Amino acid sequence: MLNFNFQNTTEIVFGMGVEEEVGKKVSKYGKKLLLHYGGTSLKKFGLYDKIVKNLTDEGIEIFELGGVLPNPRLSLVREGIKICKDNNIDFILAVGGGSAIDSAKAIGVGVKYDGDVWDFFEKRETVSDTLPLGVVLTIPAAGSETSKSCVLTNEDGWYKKSFSDSIIRPKFTIMNPEVTYTLPAKQTAAGAVDMMSHVLERYFTNEKHVELTDRLSEGVLKTIISNTPKVLDFPENYNARAEIMISSTIAHNGLLDIGRESDWASHKIEHEISALYDIAHGAGLAIILPAWMKYVYRTNIDRFVQFANRVWNIDVNFDDPEAVVLEGIKRTEEFFTSIDMPTRLSQADIDGDKFEEMASRATQNGTLGNFVKLTKEDIINIYKLAE
Amino acid sequence: MLNFNFQNTTEIVFGMGVEEEVGKKVSKYGKKLLLHYGGTSLKKFGLYDKIVKNLTDEGIEIFELGGVLPNPRLSLVREGIKICKDNNIDFILAVGGGSAIDSAKAIGVGVKYDGDVWDFFEKRETVSDTLPLGVVLTIPAAGSETSKSCVLTNEDGWYKKSFSDSIIRPKFTIMNPEVTYTLPAKQTAAGAVDMMSHVLERYFTNEKHVELTDRLSEGVLKTIISNTPKVLDFPENYNARAEIMISSTIAHNGLLDIGRESDWASHKIEHEISALYDIAHGAGLAIILPAWMKYVYRTNIDRFVQFANRVWNIDVNFDDPEAVVLEGIKRTEEFFTSIDMPTRLSQADIDGDKFEEMASRATQNGTLGNFVKLTKEDIINIYKLAE
Repeated sequence: MLNFNFQNTTEIVFGMGVEEEVGKKVSKYGKKLLLHYGGTSLKKFGLYDKIVKNLTDEGIEIFELGGVLPNPRLSLVREGIKICKDNNIDFILAVGGGSAIDSAKAIGVGVKYDGDVWDFFEKRETVSDTLPLGVVLTIPAAGSETSKSCVLTNEDGWYKKSFSDSIIRPKFTIMNPEVTYTLPAKQTAAGAVDMMSHVLERYFTNEKHVELTDRLSEGVLKTIISNTPKVLDFPENYNARAEIMISSTIAHNGLLDIGRESDWASHKIEHEISALYDIAHGAGLAIILPAWMKYVYRTNIDRFVQFANRVWNIDVNFDDPEAVVLEGIKRTEEFFTSIDMPTRLSQADIDGDKFEEMASRATQNGTLGNFVKLTKEDIINIYKLAE
Repeated sequence: MLNFNFQNTTEIVFGMGVEEEVGKKVSKYGKKLLLHYGGTSLKKFGLYDKIVKNLTDEGIEIFELGGVLPNPRLSLVREGIKICKDNNIDFILAVGGGSAIDSAKAIGVGVKYDGDVWDFFEKRETVSDTLPLGVVLTIPAAGSETSKSCVLTNEDGWYKKSFSDSIIRPKFTIMNPEVTYTLPAKQTAAGAVDMMSHVLERYFTNEKHVELTDRLSEGVLKTIISNTPKVLDFPENYNARAEIMISSTIAHNGLLDIGRESDWASHKIEHEISALYDIAHGAGLAIILPAWMKYVYRTNIDRFVQFANRVWNIDVNFDDPEAVVLEGIKRTEEFFTSIDMPTRLSQADIDGDKFEEMASRATQNGTLGNFVKLTKEDIINIYKLAE
């Protein structure tokens, strides 16, 4: 087990009707608020009105910036920074999923910085301050509601980059599973893959003696696997929605990688796809994860046997461990297919034209991943395995 | 699943040699420190000298109060409060296990209160402020290093009482598994039972739809069960010590009871034993937990079948679920016996003389527990089952 530091300070306010607490929570930190969100679905189902009323009742002045897109964009972040600076805004409330939260995180650090916010993503500067940030979560997937990471797309060249710093963890996250009843099935399923990927990127490590976090990870995976079909069958299943929603948080709150080296190659390989093609991050991961598994499993057969046995209940077979591994990967793929996610690039109408370009961009700062260090050629091979 | 709030702000600094960071961590909060600890074993193995040097190098002024006993006492807490007030101390560093930490927590809130600190334990007052507190953990067991609870014994009547408040969570906890190499086997084993009990008090709930926390709890239990024999066989097994140490924290950091009602009857039934007899809390729990299980399992057979199946790998048998349950309880008892813990009061030289008195004291504020609400008569029956 490796040495580690772990601290996650975000307050999780979870359950039926908890959005009614948003005004009280915000008023601990600020009086002038940027309400940051994506599309109009927020207004359609009444959540917007509830939040605005609740904030107004607490005497909080609201400035608005909607229009966050999936794979959030630098241009909107710059607009948000300007609004905050011009109006002395002291708190940002993100309402939505990972895109709205990451966009809000970037605005928060940009407001407290004289240079251009993209510097943090290019690692030219490290973050030293941020506006405080809160979340009303509507899409369980990214885990950004308590995480210390932030992913943004720069339209100038379509670069998708990220940075991590504890300072950007939200102060609180308000999570009512009921607000996820109206999520489209595709988004529910893509979210499930995203949260599974956050566990798997940590699970596949070469570090030995990480029994506790292995078992916690397997528990999170099993919970997602058992509850996702339930919410797809019956979107208003409160308890299954609740299991999914809290799993998304635990998958990415930092607990599951204490004491181990995580991988994150699959995320970066996928980021190149969703930077260039219009595909949900979770759908891209459903394509890349199995291909990555097939490409790397020989490096550490034991770990893949454990995954197959403990997550998919496949009997161990010491005469043919590779068969156990391949069955585990097959079951992963079949699960993605069963929730209507693509597992091949062709299913998302992506052909091989840009494999070379995507692999070049992915490796411009060196190899990807830690479980296996992947070169440009390896990544092209993984794209080909996913064709 | 029930609504919940969850936040645990304590920073965990974990691994080989991390005690060298103590000066830097403390200096974020204060310059005049109360070093609070138990016996002389701290000085024997060099940890004391290391900590003092590290603090002194950071220019921190040290006041000392040793002598914390297992089941820490109110009188020492009052002494600590006086030292802090007289010397304008601004930080408390607890070095030890749950006893030193709980004693330090009580001192912390007592310093910021004009009345008598026992008021908080009698629920006559709620806490509103505390001195900041840090921990160097040497005994993994109580989970107090990141928890919001505090247990103290008032020698005037030998009452053992507790209170909980987020404000008393330590700012940081420094955890080096190497410092636990020299823990006596009895203390190692009692610690393992204590941490298992923290999981079990939460696991046995009547709340349905708590799949994620069930699975996380089962993972923590399995990790403790697999690693405790390893550290008893070979006390310097770093990785097994590390698994045990971090398990103690996760067992009691508040994550495992999100969305459910916990029980805590066994703890209170045990507290009456360790208040009146000289027995380690963990050893008392090894006696009470199986007796409690035998007394209450019929209330919710399903939950006990799940425990037997998922924690002890006992096959489910729908023709005779009770046999599965009893086998699970038997395996729990056998595990405690295998690590040399008592499972009967007679093994700890405790006879039936005070059953009536202990049960009266335990129920002076009403019934105990939530899984089943236990009356005085129930508690006498549980003591008798444990004879």
